[in-house]
Amino acid sequence: MNGKNRRILLKSRPVGMPTAANFGAVDVPLLPVADGDVLRRTIYLSVDPYMRGRMSDADSYAAPVNLGDVMCGHTVSEVVESRNPAFRAGDIVAGYDGWQQYAVSNGKDLRKLDPRAAPVSTALGVLGMPGMTAFVGLIDIGQPRAGETVVVSAASGAVGSVVGQLAKARGCRAVGIAGSAEKCRYVVEELGFDACVNYKTDDLVPALQAACPNRIDIDFENVGGAVLAAVLRVLNRGARIPLCGRISEYNDTEDRGGPSLRSLLVNRAMIKGFIVSDHGDRMPAFIQEVAPLVRDRRIKYREDVIDGLDAAPRALIGLFESRNFGKMIVRVSPDPTLA
Amino acid sequence: MNGKNRRILLKSRPVGMPTAANFGAVDVPLLPVADGDVLRRTIYLSVDPYMRGRMSDADSYAAPVNLGDVMCGHTVSEVVESRNPAFRAGDIVAGYDGWQQYAVSNGKDLRKLDPRAAPVSTALGVLGMPGMTAFVGLIDIGQPRAGETVVVSAASGAVGSVVGQLAKARGCRAVGIAGSAEKCRYVVEELGFDACVNYKTDDLVPALQAACPNRIDIDFENVGGAVLAAVLRVLNRGARIPLCGRISEYNDTEDRGGPSLRSLLVNRAMIKGFIVSDHGDRMPAFIQEVAPLVRDRRIKYREDVIDGLDAAPRALIGLFESRNFGKMIVRVSPDPTLA
Repeated sequence: MNGKNRRILLKSRPVGMPTAANFGAVDVPLLPVADGDVLRRTIYLSVDPYMRGRMSDADSYAAPVNLGDVMCGHTVSEVVESRNPAFRAGDIVAGYDGWQQYAVSNGKDLRKLDPRAAPVSTALGVLGMPGMTAFVGLIDIGQPRAGETVVVSAASGAVGSVVGQLAKARGCRAVGIAGSAEKCRYVVEELGFDACVNYKTDDLVPALQAACPNRIDIDFENVGGAVLAAVLRVLNRGARIPLCGRISEYNDTEDRGGPSLRSLLVNRAMIKGFIVSDHGDRMPAFIQEVAPLVRDRRIKYREDVIDGLDAAPRALIGLFESRNFGKMIVRVSPDPTLA
Repeated sequence: MNGKNRRILLKSRPVGMPTAANFGAVDVPLLPVADGDVLRRTIYLSVDPYMRGRMSDADSYAAPVNLGDVMCGHTVSEVVESRNPAFRAGDIVAGYDGWQQYAVSNGKDLRKLDPRAAPVSTALGVLGMPGMTAFVGLIDIGQPRAGETVVVSAASGAVGSVVGQLAKARGCRAVGIAGSAEKCRYVVEELGFDACVNYKTDDLVPALQAACPNRIDIDFENVGGAVLAAVLRVLNRGARIPLCGRISEYNDTEDRGGPSLRSLLVNRAMIKGFIVSDHGDRMPAFIQEVAPLVRDRRIKYREDVIDGLDAAPRALIGLFESRNFGKMIVRVSPDPTLA
């Protein structure tokens, strides 16, 4: 196959909030496909909060993207040419190809998707890394029991929306925290949470107290900062806090400290950081529990799709400005399964 | 028995550091002993950091001492008159009689001590609540494995000294944090810790890095504040932090916040608050493991004894000024077992 492959590269490391100037585009020629290799065209590209960490060279749980390299990210793609017997042209695959129109590899990093089982874009969201993150954090770390109260911040997002619906499926009270009246309405009316607090307009502590009459048994923490500090004031005895993210703090240029840990001591509560990539062995259990809930519409999801590879930087920056509503996805090329 | 019973009462609630003015003494007559009751004379009275919480009426894990009531505390006493068949005059008992010379009850709250097994004052320290706190936090929450590095703040104190020696007995590297060169020397030379950092004179993060070449797997946290913030910067992947106390923050009059939780996320680390009184079922396991270590001098202890009930307020205030060196005990009356 001839043609060009457009890529978005990391050009510079952000100080504080990422900007478009941290990225640059380049067109490179597509090379002939070697024996054993699989060439695919990116259909969907995921943008996720963790990418802020990869743009930085501070010590973190994964190596940063090198300057000049293709920006990383999960993808859903269509195989366009295969010299590997395990794949055929037309196969739809999930991978980690990053911000580019085409990718080639020996296919070991690819997982075939069945377009009849679920829309293939869900491999980036509710049935992909974000859904698995919700599962591992809520079920394995939070260990919810029926009747307990589960709070989740960034409740309308890719992870938070699954946390709350999975909590409901397990018999818990689910309370969201989100950044607009529209998001709160969606979380309660569409996703079936019991309540949702608007962190931009509500007085957080009394609003959480009202939404959680039996206090908070599990806080699935995505946000950190002032939201976490308020949650800590409404904890129940024996509370568990799976610490998934701190999006409100990712663009800080200096350490602002954190919340007082008094509540952890008084309530014998637990905070535990986790990274979904440590828990690959839980993938079968995740799919077994969550895929049927998605199929039966007991777990709903929402995607916020933006078109064109060049829009990816804007899509990522939008996450930190809460401009997305649902799982943020960049459509790099048309989805053939929707034809 | 006739005579008077001197008591120290809580007169007012402290704002910030407790002062002598928060306490008042009163002499009340001793009443005749009723059928079924046990009268005992206090020999030793324990003063412990948790008492700061009982002086305050802020929400905490136990009810505060009411104004005008006898200040609470663990005691070791001699039975002077018993009308209860389970006790005889001369028995030595551990109880929770508080800051007074005499106490009377039906004896259900008393535990008989064997003066031949260990000095009876150890029932307030290494073989009492502080030792049990070290055991539950280190073993049950920290889950140490041989070869791991255990850091403990307030390392020369009643809890910290047991944590480090128990860690050594379990095959770990033990690193203390203490507030003077003399305490650090004691921790290393007498107690056998591998290293000790002086938080008053050392640059904490580099000193911890030097003392913990494989980073920190368990931090038994007694202090909070700047010490905890430094520890968080030297955590190993998968670290566990039993949160036992925050003595550096107990007298704060406003919430100063806490450390950034970034390290918990990056290192998939866990912090869990606990209260020893939740874990009474572990008492037999504690005694079984620790009593032989104390008998064989593999766990050493140091007591800081001050004489006279009226010295109790000063002894408690001294804890928050790091003036004690070892388990702080008030000797209220002579110990007959040492005669």
